[in-house]
Amino acid sequence: MEAKAKVENLETITSLCKRRGFIFLSSEIYGGLGSCYDYGPLGVEVKRNVKEAWWRSTVQARANVVGLDASIIMHPKVWEASGHIAGFNDPLIECEHCALRVRADKLDEAPMKCPKNKEGHKFGEPRMFNLMFKTNLGPIEDAANTVYLRPETAQGIFVNFNNVTDSTRVKLPFGIAQQGKSFRNEITTRRFTFRTSEFEQMEMEFFCRPEEVKEWYDYWRKERLQWFVDLGVAPERLRLRDHDEDELAHYSTACADIEYLFPFGWSELEGIACRGCYDLSKHAEHSGKKMEWLDQSTNERFIPHVVEPALGTDRAILVFLTDAYTEEKIDGNPRTVMKFHPKIAPTKVAVFPLLRKDGHPEKAMELFNSLKEHYMATYDESGNIGRRYRRQDEAGTPVCLTIDHQTFEDGTITLRDRDTLEQRRIELSQVREELFKVLGF
Amino acid sequence: MEAKAKVENLETITSLCKRRGFIFLSSEIYGGLGSCYDYGPLGVEVKRNVKEAWWRSTVQARANVVGLDASIIMHPKVWEASGHIAGFNDPLIECEHCALRVRADKLDEAPMKCPKNKEGHKFGEPRMFNLMFKTNLGPIEDAANTVYLRPETAQGIFVNFNNVTDSTRVKLPFGIAQQGKSFRNEITTRRFTFRTSEFEQMEMEFFCRPEEVKEWYDYWRKERLQWFVDLGVAPERLRLRDHDEDELAHYSTACADIEYLFPFGWSELEGIACRGCYDLSKHAEHSGKKMEWLDQSTNERFIPHVVEPALGTDRAILVFLTDAYTEEKIDGNPRTVMKFHPKIAPTKVAVFPLLRKDGHPEKAMELFNSLKEHYMATYDESGNIGRRYRRQDEAGTPVCLTIDHQTFEDGTITLRDRDTLEQRRIELSQVREELFKVLGF
Repeated sequence: MEAKAKVENLETITSLCKRRGFIFLSSEIYGGLGSCYDYGPLGVEVKRNVKEAWWRSTVQARANVVGLDASIIMHPKVWEASGHIAGFNDPLIECEHCALRVRADKLDEAPMKCPKNKEGHKFGEPRMFNLMFKTNLGPIEDAANTVYLRPETAQGIFVNFNNVTDSTRVKLPFGIAQQGKSFRNEITTRRFTFRTSEFEQMEMEFFCRPEEVKEWYDYWRKERLQWFVDLGVAPERLRLRDHDEDELAHYSTACADIEYLFPFGWSELEGIACRGCYDLSKHAEHSGKKMEWLDQSTNERFIPHVVEPALGTDRAILVFLTDAYTEEKIDGNPRTVMKFHPKIAPTKVAVFPLLRKDGHPEKAMELFNSLKEHYMATYDESGNIGRRYRRQDEAGTPVCLTIDHQTFEDGTITLRDRDTLEQRRIELSQVREELFKVLGF
Repeated sequence: MEAKAKVENLETITSLCKRRGFIFLSSEIYGGLGSCYDYGPLGVEVKRNVKEAWWRSTVQARANVVGLDASIIMHPKVWEASGHIAGFNDPLIECEHCALRVRADKLDEAPMKCPKNKEGHKFGEPRMFNLMFKTNLGPIEDAANTVYLRPETAQGIFVNFNNVTDSTRVKLPFGIAQQGKSFRNEITTRRFTFRTSEFEQMEMEFFCRPEEVKEWYDYWRKERLQWFVDLGVAPERLRLRDHDEDELAHYSTACADIEYLFPFGWSELEGIACRGCYDLSKHAEHSGKKMEWLDQSTNERFIPHVVEPALGTDRAILVFLTDAYTEEKIDGNPRTVMKFHPKIAPTKVAVFPLLRKDGHPEKAMELFNSLKEHYMATYDESGNIGRRYRRQDEAGTPVCLTIDHQTFEDGTITLRDRDTLEQRRIELSQVREELFKVLGF
């Protein structure tokens, strides 16, 4: 059976995101700023959860991976060495009549015509322009203090290779992992948060002996695909696509994309690349510093090779949002429910008083207060209970707990499960244990 | 008794930071980039812990605060409305001979002389320059697409006021909290990470009725000071300093700094400011959108007033590093120990095999693997045990666990406490409970 996208129309996701506070257009009150987005109260929690899940799986759970957090503004020589100043370009064409600019390589019509398609509108010759954002460090704007916003976090890792090996006890093979913002002055930015000028990355450079690259490349391809599956993404909407030789960067010996079946088709979610010893060699050459590994047992010195799993955090969030989105009929009534993995869900548990009287709110608030030390929790007393359940379904909250009359008689409350819709009574004193059973933490 | 700085010389901290991988100079292999720093393997964990502690205390633990994560690049009209384009300036003076530039207001010599102090060196007239980093969104550099790197995260909150109130069920008083990078093109940047061009902020805008501002201002002043004390910072090196009237911004009715006694003297660590309704009013005026609160019970509409606790994450990290730094003599031998609060410590527990044989490493690795799911942990088998303890002391690891011969006889291991230096045998099967006792989680 051929796989189908979970959601047919991206607009379904964007409107839910705005309505429920997952993602807003940046600076919306001023008409928005193309391709920049803000995470709202629910979205920021999803983002925190995705970053935390990646860090735990990539750094904390491993003996041989350490973290790093390099600055966004780096010395311009970093980008000279990495090749970004010379080569990080896109071909740009501009309509000679209306000045509309598009990427020449994304235009598949021939002959190339301005989309406005009017008399006199035609594109000029393609020009190359650099995708790095430029600014000036210090008060005077001149070439001498031009700096760039990093277009990838990876180089912050490579230039710190010696600092990390000198200050820690890492041994080959080992990884250095980083999360942080990067910036690319994309001409064509569409598809919501799929491609944006400002975006967050999660990258790891895994250094190993040259002869072990193949083995580690295979390892990380599997490991990274599994990470999405473990966090609830449907395996039939994920695939690994190996790059053809003509797609590879000149320094790369192999590269694979993890792709997801978005509403707009199969598209890249994460790349796993063999970068060889290109980056360390280039920085050694440009800085005049040795960037080598000394094998203590053989006294052999060499530049380690690198396998790099790298993904965009915002793109991963878009996958978790899309894959969680579900429309169902319950007894003939439609409901929209975000079936997030409990680790990704922005709110873990909602607490309701059945009524706004008879001591229900006080008792519910007491429970809420005891839970929020441990979990991101929410309290809601407005509207009927069915409406409150629907509200939490749309937010993706796995568990709702309700205080009612019976609570005061026998010390039990109702636990309602988001996915099974089962409602069962549990002992108030056992609430942590019951939550552990449903959430897994 | 007058308070004393914990460390006399900032250099003590900077050299430890480099040697042990807390903080490195950015792009160091290229000579460094003034006032940008990178967090190394230990530093990134401290940073994560500080951010997590703030988020838990500010958002998760409260019923009336939600989070947000706005983009760094915002619409330029945001900065017109906020007054940053017109007024976020520093006076700059330049030596007419050698072009050295300094901030006029930081120069206390009169008459103003170039520090090079040579014949012919003298400063020109002060000029104002804007502290915001400028760049261009889109491939063409012209005034029409000039954008700025945000100089504060606060405005990202104000412009999303309607988005947040429309998409959530917050009720006055409530807060919107945010963590993220900001950028200021500072001329004078010194004192390690105390003032840097690129820095991370943790800000919260707390919206309330105008007549309740005083009450909430008092509340947040106490609450924020206590946060540092709860995380182990010595109260005698913290103080609240209320701003004099002539220090206040024109829209501000009150402001207080939490100051810390740094190696270079008492300096600002966090500000708690009453911003009135200035920001929301300005954005309403410039965007033409109403930014009001509707009181459902009275049908009254008004612009809420704001109390803002705002601190620099990097500055907070510098406080935790400085305040933890301790030199002691143990039986006549000196040791350097970072007495971090367990929540701040980058590594929670270290696991050692006493010997590199007799099954010790395998048993130790087994314990390490069982712990790292729950805690940031480390494994070390090189060097004698005393040296390994010292290494963990410098990293601030609260607990070391050692596997030895006796482990195989009676199932016990040694737990060594960083601060008390006590070593006691515990049951291997009780290790989680024992760690809970020492760490508190």
